[in-house]
Amino acid sequence: MQNRRYVLVRHTDQAPIADCVEWRVDSVGTPGPGEVLTKTLLLSVDPANRGWMSSTPPSYMKGVGIGDTVRCSSIDRVVASNHPDFAPGDFVEAMSGWQDYAIAPGHELRRIEPRGDLELELSLYGLSGLTAYVGLFDIGKPKPGETIFVSAAAGSVGTIVGQLAKAAGCRVVGSAGSQSKCRWLTDELGFDAAVNYRDGALRKQLRAACPDGIDIYFDNTGGEALQAAVLLANERARVVCCGVISRWDAAQDQAIKGIPGLIAMKSMTMQGFIVFDNLHRRNEAFGLLGRLVADGRLKVASDMVEGLENAPAALAGLFAGENMGKRMIRVSAQ
Amino acid sequence: MQNRRYVLVRHTDQAPIADCVEWRVDSVGTPGPGEVLTKTLLLSVDPANRGWMSSTPPSYMKGVGIGDTVRCSSIDRVVASNHPDFAPGDFVEAMSGWQDYAIAPGHELRRIEPRGDLELELSLYGLSGLTAYVGLFDIGKPKPGETIFVSAAAGSVGTIVGQLAKAAGCRVVGSAGSQSKCRWLTDELGFDAAVNYRDGALRKQLRAACPDGIDIYFDNTGGEALQAAVLLANERARVVCCGVISRWDAAQDQAIKGIPGLIAMKSMTMQGFIVFDNLHRRNEAFGLLGRLVADGRLKVASDMVEGLENAPAALAGLFAGENMGKRMIRVSAQ
Repeated sequence: MQNRRYVLVRHTDQAPIADCVEWRVDSVGTPGPGEVLTKTLLLSVDPANRGWMSSTPPSYMKGVGIGDTVRCSSIDRVVASNHPDFAPGDFVEAMSGWQDYAIAPGHELRRIEPRGDLELELSLYGLSGLTAYVGLFDIGKPKPGETIFVSAAAGSVGTIVGQLAKAAGCRVVGSAGSQSKCRWLTDELGFDAAVNYRDGALRKQLRAACPDGIDIYFDNTGGEALQAAVLLANERARVVCCGVISRWDAAQDQAIKGIPGLIAMKSMTMQGFIVFDNLHRRNEAFGLLGRLVADGRLKVASDMVEGLENAPAALAGLFAGENMGKRMIRVSAQ
Repeated sequence: MQNRRYVLVRHTDQAPIADCVEWRVDSVGTPGPGEVLTKTLLLSVDPANRGWMSSTPPSYMKGVGIGDTVRCSSIDRVVASNHPDFAPGDFVEAMSGWQDYAIAPGHELRRIEPRGDLELELSLYGLSGLTAYVGLFDIGKPKPGETIFVSAAAGSVGTIVGQLAKAAGCRVVGSAGSQSKCRWLTDELGFDAAVNYRDGALRKQLRAACPDGIDIYFDNTGGEALQAAVLLANERARVVCCGVISRWDAAQDQAIKGIPGLIAMKSMTMQGFIVFDNLHRRNEAFGLLGRLVADGRLKVASDMVEGLENAPAALAGLFAGENMGKRMIRVSAQ
């Protein structure tokens, strides 16, 4: 049985992703004691994937080594198991990466009972949903009538954050990179306003969209959106430092004016979090998200790319802002 | 009866403080209904005083207008009172500013029963003590064995923060601007280490002084100290955004690298606060501070300047880093 996979041949520090990986075809191995052989069904495409491929991976997770399969989270089906907790046919959450088959110790897998479409396990009932829930409620602490601004609002986390904040009674403003995305946010997902950062003058657009200032800024990008938010922030505003997608392509961080001056003067909070520290809260989070879906107050958007061979383009496209909703790759239908 | 005072004649945006004020001598007025006439004993000298004199005062307080007496907090003695809560001879906390006598509505005064030397009412039992207490415990959340770095550690707030953190079981490292201040921090105030930012290579010095990284950074300065702290911060580190003394002299904010990237990746918190929002917690704060003084675990340092006429130089000297401990001005002994 053959296994197709992409391995890292060069760190992604400055290079395009397609130049950093090579396609390999070898044969599937045999699981050892306690191990499980799984078949990849869906791959998650996340900004962090590229960070793990760089020569300076973030401190919370080991980087991908040269020659290793590119890492990402996945939904798999068990093919063969030497672990008592798993049986062939089970659906599992795994970190199989960009390949058709993977072998992992049983303790690195988590069996799932799909709550609906399997793809929801990678978005609403996966890290995107948990990230949105933890960041918004633990750090953002939304109160009815407050204004929240969400950057990369058409992305996997942003779409959920915006709808969650709306359900919590906030005025919700998002930024995205095209008119069609902006229309989608307001017309389909119920955002109160959306601004296109490619139109320029983001701060001015944002001031018009947030007449009462900004109480919560959910930062998926850093850069210009963060700068505008810090300047327009109200006293006691909260900045949820979720991601830094804009940073990866910058030679260095953009200087944000007003930090720490405005943080001190406005009694603001800026706080980061790592979603992996909150895995024990999945039931609490997914319970709420599921109820909002059932009530028709939360729409889930999947941005599906077909075929393992398209993985590098799918990840590169994420940084180019191609996706509307959660981007993932379908490797196999079953 | 004559009243000597300094009035603002020009905003302090770029100009030296001495060029922004003029000395006036006029006669003391008569308190109206509900008002109290007080005599200034001690004036507090704080970085915020200069911010209030600028054309862009911070949002939490009105700026000082051209022609108005320069504002600062003070300890006064009541001379005459048309308010039932105050009688001649009472000590009060006031905002009398740079003058010998002031008239204020009774509701703007607070009667105090000095807990020791009167000057402690402007430091330990004043805004410095409350600032240190609230910032350290509410935001810093010190745990035994953690490392805290305090910038402007020889200042009014820094001296208290460092000793409070030491009492809470932390390893305490401070920065200051001279070797003599650094020695004073370690030899007299019990800091574990002190670094002289004028020696250069602050980040390298700090790395040596904090072998286990930084868990809490109490930021009184912004700038280079903040930059070094963000880079050396451990996961879940807390940055207490207390003041921005370095900022006032900079043409614009120094760009801090790693914000928001490292905030997100390390699950850090940066949080500001305004001490005036915490006035209701004075008893709680001063109770603890007083117990530590009684136990010999907290030493209070006053940096006394004699004479109202020296107020402009006293404030300018604060920004030049002259003071060791809380700077104040004695206007009258009684």
